[in-house]
Amino acid sequence: MYLSKLFIPITKDLPAEAKIKSHQLMLRTGMIKQSSAGIYSWLPLGFKVMKKIEQIVREEQNLIGAQEMLMPTIQSSEIWKESGRYDDYGEEMLRIKDRQGREILYGPTNEELITDVFRTSVKSYKLLPQLLYHIQWKFRDEIRPRFGVMRCKEFYMKDAYSFDLSDEDAKKSYNKMFYSYLKTFNRLDLKAIPMAADTGPIGGDLSHEFVILADTGESDIYADKNIFEIDLNRYKFDDSSLQKMREDFTKVYAVTDEKFKKEEFNKLVKKENQIITKGIEVGHIFYFSDKYSKPMNCLIDDKSGKKTSVKMGSYGIGVSRLVGAIIEAKYNNDIMKWPESIAPFKVVIIPSISKNNKENLEKAIKIYQELKKQNIDVLLDDVDENMSNKFKKHDLIGIPYQIIVGAKSDDDNFEFKEVNNTSQILSLDKIKSKLKN
Amino acid sequence: MYLSKLFIPITKDLPAEAKIKSHQLMLRTGMIKQSSAGIYSWLPLGFKVMKKIEQIVREEQNLIGAQEMLMPTIQSSEIWKESGRYDDYGEEMLRIKDRQGREILYGPTNEELITDVFRTSVKSYKLLPQLLYHIQWKFRDEIRPRFGVMRCKEFYMKDAYSFDLSDEDAKKSYNKMFYSYLKTFNRLDLKAIPMAADTGPIGGDLSHEFVILADTGESDIYADKNIFEIDLNRYKFDDSSLQKMREDFTKVYAVTDEKFKKEEFNKLVKKENQIITKGIEVGHIFYFSDKYSKPMNCLIDDKSGKKTSVKMGSYGIGVSRLVGAIIEAKYNNDIMKWPESIAPFKVVIIPSISKNNKENLEKAIKIYQELKKQNIDVLLDDVDENMSNKFKKHDLIGIPYQIIVGAKSDDDNFEFKEVNNTSQILSLDKIKSKLKN
Repeated sequence: MYLSKLFIPITKDLPAEAKIKSHQLMLRTGMIKQSSAGIYSWLPLGFKVMKKIEQIVREEQNLIGAQEMLMPTIQSSEIWKESGRYDDYGEEMLRIKDRQGREILYGPTNEELITDVFRTSVKSYKLLPQLLYHIQWKFRDEIRPRFGVMRCKEFYMKDAYSFDLSDEDAKKSYNKMFYSYLKTFNRLDLKAIPMAADTGPIGGDLSHEFVILADTGESDIYADKNIFEIDLNRYKFDDSSLQKMREDFTKVYAVTDEKFKKEEFNKLVKKENQIITKGIEVGHIFYFSDKYSKPMNCLIDDKSGKKTSVKMGSYGIGVSRLVGAIIEAKYNNDIMKWPESIAPFKVVIIPSISKNNKENLEKAIKIYQELKKQNIDVLLDDVDENMSNKFKKHDLIGIPYQIIVGAKSDDDNFEFKEVNNTSQILSLDKIKSKLKN
Repeated sequence: MYLSKLFIPITKDLPAEAKIKSHQLMLRTGMIKQSSAGIYSWLPLGFKVMKKIEQIVREEQNLIGAQEMLMPTIQSSEIWKESGRYDDYGEEMLRIKDRQGREILYGPTNEELITDVFRTSVKSYKLLPQLLYHIQWKFRDEIRPRFGVMRCKEFYMKDAYSFDLSDEDAKKSYNKMFYSYLKTFNRLDLKAIPMAADTGPIGGDLSHEFVILADTGESDIYADKNIFEIDLNRYKFDDSSLQKMREDFTKVYAVTDEKFKKEEFNKLVKKENQIITKGIEVGHIFYFSDKYSKPMNCLIDDKSGKKTSVKMGSYGIGVSRLVGAIIEAKYNNDIMKWPESIAPFKVVIIPSISKNNKENLEKAIKIYQELKKQNIDVLLDDVDENMSNKFKKHDLIGIPYQIIVGAKSDDDNFEFKEVNNTSQILSLDKIKSKLKN
């Protein structure tokens, strides 16, 4: 892609309405554009990052045997009355009347709807366990939307649901998701801490939130740094190993400010292991047993033929929120560097272009064509602008590698730079092999 | 995937509410489940097919240089008031008041929103032409939703928008989309006819709808069969060749009943070339110049520095609708066969299983593992059910190839069948090489 063709409305001004750095960066680099309060369009750069995050989430869900489906955004109020949440949910639920006066709503979450799908589809224990998920837009009518995609009204979320015959089996499903979440955040190059959490309006008695570290996070985090020493590769994908994994994580001290007690922290965690930092919640998992299946009559025949309410959990990851959260974690000292797994492009070629000399641009085009042949996702900055402005712009766009075609390059060697590292002069072959790794 | 693990609630009964065959088939094979009138959940089988269609649409849009982005489902009424369509649109628009009493709506189409994105992003002719598209859920508050996903309320659509400096340039963008649509429908193994069309509430003076042939279609089609002789490969991807392509298509007689005149048909089309059949609209493209850009003040500096309203077109493909339309086109004589490009699985292994003999199942599992190693997307029907029921079920599910492990198979040779063809006894190697082609 040539930068001059990319639909990327970059603005030089710091947008006044944006209070946090992810919101600022996303507006400045044309990743998003606000369409109304708390509602955004995702422009090509932002869209590409979000889709890559979505794909990693999807792959990790598939790997634990979860099946993808898709529930609609608009739901009938009927099922929410069955569960008893229609009146409880409060004003964040966007309630709508259709042209025939029927009460419908824009789903803020999908426990009721998935329970309705399940109760008409599965009747026998033989089909259990089941893990189903979808990735869909949801709506929360925030009274004061702010912080860009971090607290907006229309947001993109993966939510999964587990169905088991017994509480014991259900906890095995819970552990699989716990494992999948940690793997997902690893692939996004994030340091994620699972923390025992309150269940809020979803309900249930077992819940963890997954918090990633970011200096600018919304919650204060107090943890034992040993939590980062636990190696996921130690565990096998079987029930007892995954149970051990959850116990190992849960044993290490890690709490948000709500549960923090200073004496306890000092007693349980050695001074040199204490981490006090900030974090952002990017995932939340819940086990709530028959909280929905019971009132909604979602029954399964057990081995003896007796009907029993299916045992359920739900598991969310904020996909659009992650775009902002990753910026909060990775954008430091005015330089952004996207994790390679989700970078909008792998490498950008930045030629020094002047009115009377297009030689560097021609060289850059040749490199571009070479990299394209190797299926490397490359951006060519063919915009006629001085190098100092270009560098500032790419500090924000955050493509992890740069090839600079200017004074330091000759016919065969070019300046190659990994963001946040010093540059090297390398042959194109060396550059190619570095990028292929 | 093992069929016993797949979330696929198959029903034997013909659903009473389903009047057309795609709706019946989708309910019977558990592709969708109705959640409320005209609103569906997409279960794994249906979801997989829809995602494959979406991916083909996406690839063909990218190939003509269109850039993907994503607009939200919820829009503010303000921009619709600017264009003048807020009052005109009628009751199919789902109008909503948020908790603060602001008028919002669930987008039925996105001309206003994309114009708003564009006017704040692009100011100079240098950045033109631009083609932007998104694939997003839309809502139409149908008073009588029916025919399953063919006429429902919440539907999934690709809509693209073109931006040009002049009417002349804009028609080049129009031709690119025209070409992209024909290529897309070819890849979906559909016979699509472009037809000059009325513009309706979108507006403008140039419009084509793309209609695919299906015996059970909603419109009567009268056409010259020569329209299917036009070979897209004849045209190059340049402006003059694409203009020629559109003219070649437009020259051949093809109309729906609205424009049909018997005498004209008989005069213009030789008897032996006359096709009288039925069709389903699956795409619609519009050129409407400055219909939205003018009232919404979406201005571009031209070469002389003069401000001019950008010239726009819009281009829709009904992605969820296509799932139903393809079934209408391909499901005949109680047998469904998905086009290979979008089939939910490439091949299904059907072993004959009995209580006392699991030998065939074991063989089938070995074949399954072999095919998996070759990255072939295979379903294993491990359900304990008699062969006659299995065959009936797979006639509906529509996986294009079957490997039958039963009486006719020995240790090395198995019955291999392409749906709607006679079966052959083939070695596993031969089967593999057939499937890899």
